[in-house]
Formats: sequence, structure tokens, C-alpha cells
Amino acid sequence: MRVGVLTGGGDCPGLNAVIRSVVRKGVQDHDWQFVGIVDGWRGAVEDVTTVLDVPRVRGILTHGGTILGASRTNPLRAEDGVERVRRTLGNHGIDALVVIGGEDTLGVAQTLAEQGIDLVGVPKTIDNDVGGTDYTFGFDTAVSIAAEAIDRLHTTAESHRRALVVEVMGRHAGWIALHAGVAGGASGILVPERAFDVEEVCAWVERRFRLRYAPVVVVAEGAVPQAGQLVVRNEARDEFGHVRLSGIGDWLAGEIERRTGRQARTTVLGYLQRGGTPTAYDRWLATRFGLAAVAALKDRDFGTMTALRGTDIIRVPLADALRTAKQVPAELYEEFTVFFGS
Amino acid sequence: MRVGVLTGGGDCPGLNAVIRSVVRKGVQDHDWQFVGIVDGWRGAVEDVTTVLDVPRVRGILTHGGTILGASRTNPLRAEDGVERVRRTLGNHGIDALVVIGGEDTLGVAQTLAEQGIDLVGVPKTIDNDVGGTDYTFGFDTAVSIAAEAIDRLHTTAESHRRALVVEVMGRHAGWIALHAGVAGGASGILVPERAFDVEEVCAWVERRFRLRYAPVVVVAEGAVPQAGQLVVRNEARDEFGHVRLSGIGDWLAGEIERRTGRQARTTVLGYLQRGGTPTAYDRWLATRFGLAAVAALKDRDFGTMTALRGTDIIRVPLADALRTAKQVPAELYEEFTVFFGS
Amino acid sequence: MRVGVLTGGGDCPGLNAVIRSVVRKGVQDHDWQFVGIVDGWRGAVEDVTTVLDVPRVRGILTHGGTILGASRTNPLRAEDGVERVRRTLGNHGIDALVVIGGEDTLGVAQTLAEQGIDLVGVPKTIDNDVGGTDYTFGFDTAVSIAAEAIDRLHTTAESHRRALVVEVMGRHAGWIALHAGVAGGASGILVPERAFDVEEVCAWVERRFRLRYAPVVVVAEGAVPQAGQLVVRNEARDEFGHVRLSGIGDWLAGEIERRTGRQARTTVLGYLQRGGTPTAYDRWLATRFGLAAVAALKDRDFGTMTALRGTDIIRVPLADALRTAKQVPAELYEEFTVFFGS
Amino acid sequence: MRVGVLTGGGDCPGLNAVIRSVVRKGVQDHDWQFVGIVDGWRGAVEDVTTVLDVPRVRGILTHGGTILGASRTNPLRAEDGVERVRRTLGNHGIDALVVIGGEDTLGVAQTLAEQGIDLVGVPKTIDNDVGGTDYTFGFDTAVSIAAEAIDRLHTTAESHRRALVVEVMGRHAGWIALHAGVAGGASGILVPERAFDVEEVCAWVERRFRLRYAPVVVVAEGAVPQAGQLVVRNEARDEFGHVRLSGIGDWLAGEIERRTGRQARTTVLGYLQRGGTPTAYDRWLATRFGLAAVAALKDRDFGTMTALRGTDIIRVPLADALRTAKQVPAELYEEFTVFFGS
Repeated sequence: MRVGVLTGGGDCPGLNAVIRSVVRKGVQDHDWQFVGIVDGWRGAVEDVTTVLDVPRVRGILTHGGTILGASRTNPLRAEDGVERVRRTLGNHGIDALVVIGGEDTLGVAQTLAEQGIDLVGVPKTIDNDVGGTDYTFGFDTAVSIAAEAIDRLHTTAESHRRALVVEVMGRHAGWIALHAGVAGGASGILVPERAFDVEEVCAWVERRFRLRYAPVVVVAEGAVPQAGQLVVRNEARDEFGHVRLSGIGDWLAGEIERRTGRQARTTVLGYLQRGGTPTAYDRWLATRFGLAAVAALKDRDFGTMTALRGTDIIRVPLADALRTAKQVPAELYEEFTVFFGS
Repeated sequence: MRVGVLTGGGDCPGLNAVIRSVVRKGVQDHDWQFVGIVDGWRGAVEDVTTVLDVPRVRGILTHGGTILGASRTNPLRAEDGVERVRRTLGNHGIDALVVIGGEDTLGVAQTLAEQGIDLVGVPKTIDNDVGGTDYTFGFDTAVSIAAEAIDRLHTTAESHRRALVVEVMGRHAGWIALHAGVAGGASGILVPERAFDVEEVCAWVERRFRLRYAPVVVVAEGAVPQAGQLVVRNEARDEFGHVRLSGIGDWLAGEIERRTGRQARTTVLGYLQRGGTPTAYDRWLATRFGLAAVAALKDRDFGTMTALRGTDIIRVPLADALRTAKQVPAELYEEFTVFFGS
Repeated sequence: MRVGVLTGGGDCPGLNAVIRSVVRKGVQDHDWQFVGIVDGWRGAVEDVTTVLDVPRVRGILTHGGTILGASRTNPLRAEDGVERVRRTLGNHGIDALVVIGGEDTLGVAQTLAEQGIDLVGVPKTIDNDVGGTDYTFGFDTAVSIAAEAIDRLHTTAESHRRALVVEVMGRHAGWIALHAGVAGGASGILVPERAFDVEEVCAWVERRFRLRYAPVVVVAEGAVPQAGQLVVRNEARDEFGHVRLSGIGDWLAGEIERRTGRQARTTVLGYLQRGGTPTAYDRWLATRFGLAAVAALKDRDFGTMTALRGTDIIRVPLADALRTAKQVPAELYEEFTVFFGS
Repeated sequence: MRVGVLTGGGDCPGLNAVIRSVVRKGVQDHDWQFVGIVDGWRGAVEDVTTVLDVPRVRGILTHGGTILGASRTNPLRAEDGVERVRRTLGNHGIDALVVIGGEDTLGVAQTLAEQGIDLVGVPKTIDNDVGGTDYTFGFDTAVSIAAEAIDRLHTTAESHRRALVVEVMGRHAGWIALHAGVAGGASGILVPERAFDVEEVCAWVERRFRLRYAPVVVVAEGAVPQAGQLVVRNEARDEFGHVRLSGIGDWLAGEIERRTGRQARTTVLGYLQRGGTPTAYDRWLATRFGLAAVAALKDRDFGTMTALRGTDIIRVPLADALRTAKQVPAELYEEFTVFFGS
């Protein structure tokens, strides 16, 4: 079998571990050939490929990024997108694809699968919000980076008695905020699933100060305050003439200062959470996903996605997995409120 | 309710996170009082206790070790051990215990529970070999430390074209060896569950050298070679007059040198895997276990142990959990053989 | 002798190591007593002190922050500031002070020394811009954190072929930017000592892209573009109604996008560089500074500051040290231009 | 000019950073060509070379090990060794060499230089014992790894009230032991420069236990006890029939147990100190050394070695640098005894 591999969407620690595992297993145990499709779906549409064999994947296990590149190209946006993908696969004699990506990339995969293109998916998202799988690789790394940053910020907060707001990734789901906030002993955690009361946050902050500790509040980038508490959001040009949107972290720090009179500062972790060497767990999970993707191809179980259930790697139909975004359940969030503002 | 807390057995990253979480939840949400029992069961037998309140657990989330100390004392070994434990509990008005420990400590807990002492358990083992729970805290940290060591050793192995043997913890189960070996891209992984063929290991080593890469072989301390391949194991006095047993890592390195003519060296990670700051995941899991232990006490669900099942924290009867040691299944180990010696 | 210790100015990894070393040496070898002055000069003005003995400094060697707190209070700003300081010293029978701080804090110390208050200084600055000493503690930690962030960002930059701008600390001197940029293999380093040509930076960025690598440009917060290249700097209110100044990093990313058409993103490391556990080198240096401060007090060599010269710890008159800010010399910067945009 | 580069001796973090910096500077600024000599002097004797150009050194800055390989081959041991080296240089049109290595490698370099082979040296030693330079690259990384290990072991030592002995690298000089021991807050530091009194070490251990803290004693592999305190050192065959020498760490732990009755365990850090990613400082220093080596070649200043003096990179004649091994001065060691056993 000749298998194409592509990685779509944002960077994520563990992508190379998946690629390595897919190629090692496919070549060594099944004598397959692989074609690297460059920059996600872009390479599939524009027929840009690269060598992908065992020598190519030597030593990449610990490397962040992806040797295949990635992009957010969506072949379904162009009229003849699907046709061009088929043509690329035909040109290279590709029998099936391994598609590694997040919601968007796998959504495209699902559509193409329905149109007869043989493929299996591997879920990738730093945010851990792809449904059907307990965890996705890259998440543990992002949480570890965020927790380590929170650890560092605690001491600064205490030395100067400032409130520090740490904004982490998570547009639609607060998994990173929750896990990192708990691991980092945050005084408050704000997630997109739950509109927050800025007055309550200020109360947490005040209580911590009165206990003679400094508060570190973790807020997911997609968290929003309750209706009525947010100034209408307009684009603004900053003093250098460039368009810039402040994030929710900046806004919250400003509100804390305004309402409590205490000093507050924001740290936006941004891309730091996406890059670099994956944690041991993410390398383990990514490796297992790659091996499972090959098994799925071997079984011709197309249109499925590898997933983690407990300690087992299983397959779920792409359709099912993408149906629901995995959000932080209210009961889980509630477990940790005992730590807020105290 | 007045609750005693003790940590028994070996050191494990995350113990303090459990203690903190138990105390914060118990005091803040239920107004309970806590008594710290010092050095595991020893303090319960000898009535050695210490203050345990919210101020005492401030700032310990990231600290390795345990503020309560630990020991391997077993109250069941003394005739009046159980009586003395009852007396200690009585002296301090302790209604129930939270027992944090491994197989041995929880085994004692189970016996005492059967004799009417109200308690709940929290499983602790670096080796991840306590049954009934997908993972125990401390395991992720041990794996991360081992994987990081393997990463460091790869470059040295390649610069000098030596085989490096890394001996990791795991007397009865090879979980650390397996997870760290996979995460570290080891050329071979040897676990207690599966007697290894030293000739096969040497073949892996040779193949790697011929591919112009250096082999790093990870071996669990409890791994054993097949019958007939091991010299009878005697204690020996070394050149300084002290008794010393070489471990399986040293033995294997010696065999590799003898049989292949290649140079081989051993690194024994030992205590490095036990100590220090827990990873973000271990702090998350330990924190959840502590909260769940309090919930179990609240529900008067004594004789149970907190456990992880998938992403849920559940309770299992201590008896069930301790029945089986959790060992690496053959099928899981087989998943990764594609990476050995290649 | 009764010695007061204070830490002024911003947080800096290693402060606690200095305090520990001062107290251990002073108590154990000279039988001195110590008084902890809280929050830098504020505690000296307002007479806020705390216990400072050997038990108090146990275990703080690796802790970021300062057990004494810090502030930017300047006693010279109040009319009776100096008098109040004298009164505090008198109230507690303090014979001499150890003043740990940056330019501002030590500047105050110098003035007070000239007015007869016996003290020695220990230089503290993340930015490494205090003159008279080869390095200050905290600098190595800040550089390590920044270099690690740059490592992480490289992979993300390459996966998406974006230019990443990393803004690091350094208002008046580009030491962090230079050291971290070199250690992180940056494609460009911009420092306050040298107004940069934004066109040249764009050329570096373009060249890297054409070599099929992604550019990471490190810019010190105090770096400025050449005259005529910067829009006049006004305060602006962002879309949430709060005052916010974009930094030079944001501005540069915007310019890169505008001028090259490539995508560019900014990461501002901010407080992450100040907090948390100091590196091994910073603990070594801070410890030596503390021991040297005690030696200076013993010799009654007041009005001096501990300093590092090569591998020796020496004393320099506070006046000399504070005369010149230590900036990156042009020749040193030039050494590394071979790496820019290539 | 056509320049050969070789790396001899043991692995050391930063070797690749030196190679990268030499090649980038030599090619980009002077249009030189480079020849990679494989495995140190072995490649020079046996004429084994490899491509060495800018593409070859892309991305190696953070990689441990050396892309050129290394060995302990000494061309002076063979009768015609020097002739064979000349022949290799002639075969490849090599005008000069950059020799990166420790005492032994540079010792050979010095001899060859005296015999007319044009070369410059770059000092490499984890142990920091090459004279003429304040620090060598790789040292900071080894110290950081050792200090981190000591941090981890502290918590385990305290949980179980054991004395932990950490054996670190350093055959002839105790630099790693001293720096890591100070950075790690060790209760005792033993170095080769100073025969230790095992009774005094036991006293340190006892005092720490009585203070209710656990002792961590750091011992350099080359440290020795005072005359009369060491059993005559013989080779011994262990129980598996392989020759094994216990190290000084094992011996010391045994003595502590024997003499104090306390439990003691040893951790031998071994190869962990040599491998993997160099610290930011080591990448900085290695990069500067590489640039300086090229400058020395450009100036035809052969027979010299790059060195660090304070914050300057200078050149010293190889002869001078190799004359004296750099050992820990007694006064420096004495600075830190205040921390032992207390």
C-alpha cells in the first residue's frame, strides 16, 4: 500500500512523533511506501509532496513542529478542491491517507471520506477539545508549559503583592486553563464554558491578598464575562497605527485594578504553549496513535479516527468524534472551586 | 469529623498535593479538623502526630516528598499493633483516616478497615502497579525524569558509539520502562513481565550500530533474562569490603560487551525517579484523588480507594484494587517491538 | 553585630539565595543577629521588620521571590525619609545593613552611606546592567527562560512559516536579548544600545524564509528603531476602554507584516523572566555575593558593593559601580551579526 | 582557506554549537571551505572525513553530542601517527585545523603544532579543569544537571530520613561537585583536591539529622579519603562474574551506614552529566569560542587556544594553557564550609 501523510492546522507538540510511528510501523511491518504531503491539505490540493521514509523520520521523536509543514488550507473552499486532491493522490499512486489534524482538518477528512477517499484520522489539538477521545496529544505539553509559567509567576506576584493574570490557550474549551490552573495552584480559573462574574474574581483576588498571598488567576483566551460586564468589543488602532485587540487577560487585569485598587498584570502565554519538545506522555500518546492509524489502514477501517479511551487506543467513526466539541463539564469545574480565592 | 492523614511507603512526587487537597477541601467545605500522623503507620502505632491545617499545607503543591514523613512500618507485624493504632486514634478523637500509600500501606489499611477502623485509601506508587486504577500519581513524573535521562544519553551514546543501558524503577511491573522507553525512543525495552533473551538484545544492539546509530536499552530493575542466561545470583563483597549487588543493568551491559565486543555502559536512575517536583499531570491527579478521598469520607464510603478510570475519579473497594497487581499486558508491550533494534 | 537585610526593586531569581547565605554566614561564623526589613526601603522608612534567623532561611535557596518582600519605595523622596530610616535602625539596634537591589535601591544606599549609615550592597538586576560587576544574579535565569522560549517558538515558526518576534526584558541594555538570542539561534537581535533599521530586519526575515527556515527575531523591550521609522508614541485606549501601550515587539511584528507580506506574531515574555527557581549558576553567584557581603561587613568596608570579576568576588565602591550603566558594547554585538538573516 | 574541524575526547554539551559557529563564520564572512574530520584524531590518522558546510550545521545549536563523532585516539601513540595526519591534511588540501577537545586532545594538538601543523584549539571539558580559561563549555550544563538531581534527591532524603550521597564527575578537579553542591544546598562537598576525613563527613550527616533535616553529600568521583581510611583498592568480580569497581560514592554511603547507624544511599550521575542539550550559557560560550577560533585562524595565530577571561574571549598559547590543570583553590572551597553539616 502506498500511504500519504499530512498534518493540518496549528502546530502541536507530538506531530512528528505520530509521523515517525506511522512510517516506522508501515514500512517495517507491512512494507508500505509513504508519501509526505506538504503543508496539510495545501499539498494535497496543489500536489506538493516530499520524501517520507524511515531515514526521514530518524531522530524526530522529540522535535516539536512537523517535518511535513502545516497550513489551514481547506480544499472544500475551492470549487474543484476535491478533484484536485483526487488528482494528487492519483499522480502519486496513493491508496490511502493518514490525516493528522484538529477539528477543521478532520472535518475536511470526513467529507472527503464520504466522497470515497480512503483515509484514517489522528486527532490533534492543543486545546483537547476534539470529542471522542479522552485526550489528544499536545495537550499535556501545553498544560505543562502553562503550569510551569504559573509556578514562576507565583513568586513574582508574592514579592510585589500584585495580582497576575495568565491568559492561556482555549478558544472554545477551558481544558488547558483548568488543568494548568489546578496544577499551578491558581487562585481562580476562568473558562469559556462558564461566563464569569468579574466581581467574584475581584473577591477572590482580595481574599488572597488579605491572607497575605498573591493571587494568580488563569483565564482561557475564550473566556467571557457575564452579560453587561464587558465593554462592547471594537477593533482599535494602537499608538503605532497598527490594529490590535487586547485579549481577555488584559481586560481582566484592567478590571481588577479598577475595581480593587490593587496592581494587576497580564502574561499571555500564546505560542509558547504550541511549540517545542513534547512531554513524555505526549510522545507516548502520539506514538500509540500513529501505530493505531497504521492498524486501521491495515484493517481498511477507513473514515475512522484513533482515540484514547482510558488506557486503550480505539477507533471511532470520524463523524461521531466531530459531532461534539469536548468541553469542560460543570461538575468537573466545580470540583476545584474550593481552591479559588483562598 | 476529625480526620487523620498518613503517607506510607516510599517517597513519591504528588504526596503533598494529595495532602493539601484533602485538608483544603475538608476544612473549607466541611469544617473538619485534621491530624497529621507522622511517618506513615509508625505514627499511628507510636502515637506521633503533628499539626495539619490549612496554613500547614500552604505552598506544598509543587513540593516533592511528604510533610508527614513516611516509613515502611507495618502495624500488623507487632502483636498489639492494631490495638495501638486504635489507641492513637482514640487519643486524638480521630473518626476516620485517609491513608495514602502503595500496595503494602493499603494492604494494612484493608486489614484495619475489616477490623472496623474507618478509612479511605489513595493509591500511591511510582511503578503504577496498583490495580483498580488506570494510573497512580508519581508515575508520570518518574516516566518524565526517565525519558529526559534517555534523551540526554542518546547523544552520548552516538558520539562514542557505545550501547547505553538505562536501569529504571519497576520491581514487578515494567510500566516506567515501557512508557519512558517509548517516549525516549529506546532501541529495546526489558520488563519484568517478560523474561528476555540476552541474545536478542545483543541483536538489537548490533543492528543499531550497523545503522550507524547508537542503542539505548531501557531495562526495569525487576527484569530477568530467560532461564539459563543468568549466573546464579550471590551477594558479593566489593573491593572496599561492603556488600553490593549489581543490578540487572550492570549485568546486561557486561553481557553486551562480552557477546558483541561493543562498548556498553550503565546508568541507574534510582532515586532520581522518586524525588522532587511532580509534573503538572501528577499534581492534577493527586489533587483530584485528595478531593475524592474527602468525598468518600463524607459519604462514609469506608474501605474504598480512590481510582482513575478514563477521565473519571471513582471509588473501588480496597479489596478489589489490591487483588491484582497491574502488570504490562503482552499485547501492549508487543505494540512497540517495531521500534527495537531498528 | 546586629544586621538589617532588605531587598528592594523588582523580583529577581536568587534573592532568597543571597539572604540565606548572608544569614547562615553571619550567624554561624560570627554569631551576629539579623533583622529582616520588609519590602525594601519601605520597611526601613515605616519601621516594618520581621524575624530573620537561620530557621527562617531554611529551604529557601531554590525559591524565587524574596522572603522579605520588595518595593520601589525611595526614602529620599520624603523630606524626613533619611531620618525615619535612622530611627528604624535605632529602634532595632541595627549596626549595619545589607542592601540587595538594583540601580535605584543601591543609589539610595549610596546616598545613605554618604550620610553615615553603615551598609554594603549586593547588586541585583535581571538586566545585568549594573556596572562594576561582570554579571549580576538573576541574569542567567532570565536568559535561560528566554532561550528556552525561543527554542519552543522555532518549531512553531517553521511549521507555519511565520516570523516570530520575541520581546524580552531590557529597558536600557540588551544583555538578555543578546545572550538569549545567541543561545537560541535567533535570526536577528535588537538591543537598546543600537537603533535598528526596520528595513534591515525585514531583509533578515525575508532571507530566512527564502532559505526555507523561519525567522525568530529577539527584541529587547527598550530597543528603538532609527529616527523616522517610528510613529509618534501616544497612549491609546484599547477597545475595552483601558489604557494600553503596545510594546516594540508588537510594533515590529506589525511592520514586518506590512512591509514583507509575511505573517508575523509576537510573544512578550514579560514577568516569566523574573520569577521562579534560579538556575544553578545564579544560586552559586547569589550565594557567593551573600558570603562576600558578610565579609565586607566584618571588615567594616562600608559603602561598597559585592561584584564579580572573572571568577573572583571583589568589592567596589558603590559610587564607582553606579556611575556607569553596563551596556552591550558595539564590538560584542558585532560578533554575532554573522548569524542574522542567514 | 580550507579548514578541518575535529572533536576529540568525551562527549560534552556544546560541541555542536562550536562547530556551527566555526562553519557559519568561516563560510559566510571569509568564504572558507571546511572538512569534517570524523571521530577526533582517528579521522585525522585514518583519513575519515565528512562534509562540513552551512547546511550541515543547520539546527545543531541545541543538540548534544557532536556531528563529527569523537574518540580518544592518540596519533602520537603510533609510530607514523603524525605522518598519517599530515597525509590526511594533504589529501584534502586542509590548510589548518580547529581542534576541539580536552587536555588529551589539545595535548596532541600542541605537539602537532610544534611540528608545524597549523591549528587552533578550543578547550572542552565537562570538568572545567583545563587551565588558562575561566570556564569551559559543557561545565554549566553538567553543574545544572547535577544541581537539579540534588534538588530532586533532597525531598526523598527528608521523607525517609536517609543520607544521600551523590557522586558527580570530576576525576582530578572538584569543580562540578563544588558548583553543584553549593547550588543544590548540599550538606557536604568532597573534592579531589582535598582528602576528606570520613569521620567529619559522618559528623555533618549526624548534625543534619539532629536538626531534623536530611543530609545530601556531594562527592566528586576522584575524591579520596585521608590516608588510612580507605581499604586497599582491588578489582573485584561481582556476583555475575563481571569486573566492577564501586565508586567512592558507594564506599562513602557504606561508611556512613557503618559508622552512624543511619541509612545511606548513593546516586551516581555518570553519563547524565555529559549528554543532551547544553544550557543557554554553554551555547553562548561555545558560540563565542567558535567565532574566536575563526578569528585566530584568520590572524594565523596558530598554536593558540581560545579562552574565557572574565567576559572577554582571548587567546592563550596552547603550551601555557596545558601546563597547569585548573583545580579548586583551597580558599574557594573554604568559602562554603559554613554550609556543611548545618
